[in-house]
Amino acid sequence: MATTADAATVARLLDAFNREFDTATPGPVVLAKRLDRLLAGDATIAVLAGDPAVAVAVLTLRTNVWYEGRVGLLDELYVVPGLRGQGVGSALLAAAESVTRERGGALLEINVDGQDTDARRFYERHGYRNSEAGQDQPILYYYRELTDTA
Amino acid sequence: MATTADAATVARLLDAFNREFDTATPGPVVLAKRLDRLLAGDATIAVLAGDPAVAVAVLTLRTNVWYEGRVGLLDELYVVPGLRGQGVGSALLAAAESVTRERGGALLEINVDGQDTDARRFYERHGYRNSEAGQDQPILYYYRELTDTA
Repeated sequence: MATTADAATVARLLDAFNREFDTATPGPVVLAKRLDRLLAGDATIAVLAGDPAVAVAVLTLRTNVWYEGRVGLLDELYVVPGLRGQGVGSALLAAAESVTRERGGALLEINVDGQDTDARRFYERHGYRNSEAGQDQPILYYYRELTDTA
Repeated sequence: MATTADAATVARLLDAFNREFDTATPGPVVLAKRLDRLLAGDATIAVLAGDPAVAVAVLTLRTNVWYEGRVGLLDELYVVPGLRGQGVGSALLAAAESVTRERGGALLEINVDGQDTDARRFYERHGYRNSEAGQDQPILYYYRELTDTA
């Protein structure tokens, strides 16, 4: 489990993650500063694997009216290229589930790109479901950036 | 915006919501007790419409490494039968966006059942997107209940 001392390491991996997948990133310096603050709180949790670290999972906890405790959302799960397919991701997912349980969480949520069939298979293999019982349509994730409006 | 004094009202509407859609609910008494605690904090927000209240929106705020502030997730949006199609939902969604912005949030997220085409159209009409730019596949919501495992 990462502490604030690991903020730069977590930042470096998350930045590499987004650069690999052509996703915007504020860069490792901004991320490290932010993580230094977030990891000091109890809502953001990062788990590292390897020494030096070669993989990271980041999850956040939020309140939910349907659960007595908080629920976890796995925001990021990244294993550096070259070390994939060796169970590192599975180990990190198990660690993320454990820490969610330890913090009283009974649910772990993940948003997955529909075209990322590898990720979908990975989570389905680990017991994650995409639809309510009795429904054949998936549950969809919608979002709106609020900064573009008054 | 609901205060702890409205916990029973929010609970009654959420319970009616789940009963209408055949979703499990712990019942209004348990929900009211939980909401009394959650609404006293700063991570769970409920907005009511009407007097007596005929609609409710519940959103939660969580941390996110990609944003300096927190991000909002609209957990519930319910308008009682008979008052739908009159803009109440749109007004509550706008209120949810406003309060997210006021709390420093730059993103509002919503998970929607794929078969609920009315809800999908509603959110799409209000500027919500379901895929990353340049992608044609939707982003999917996955979940796993953690209580069923050791």
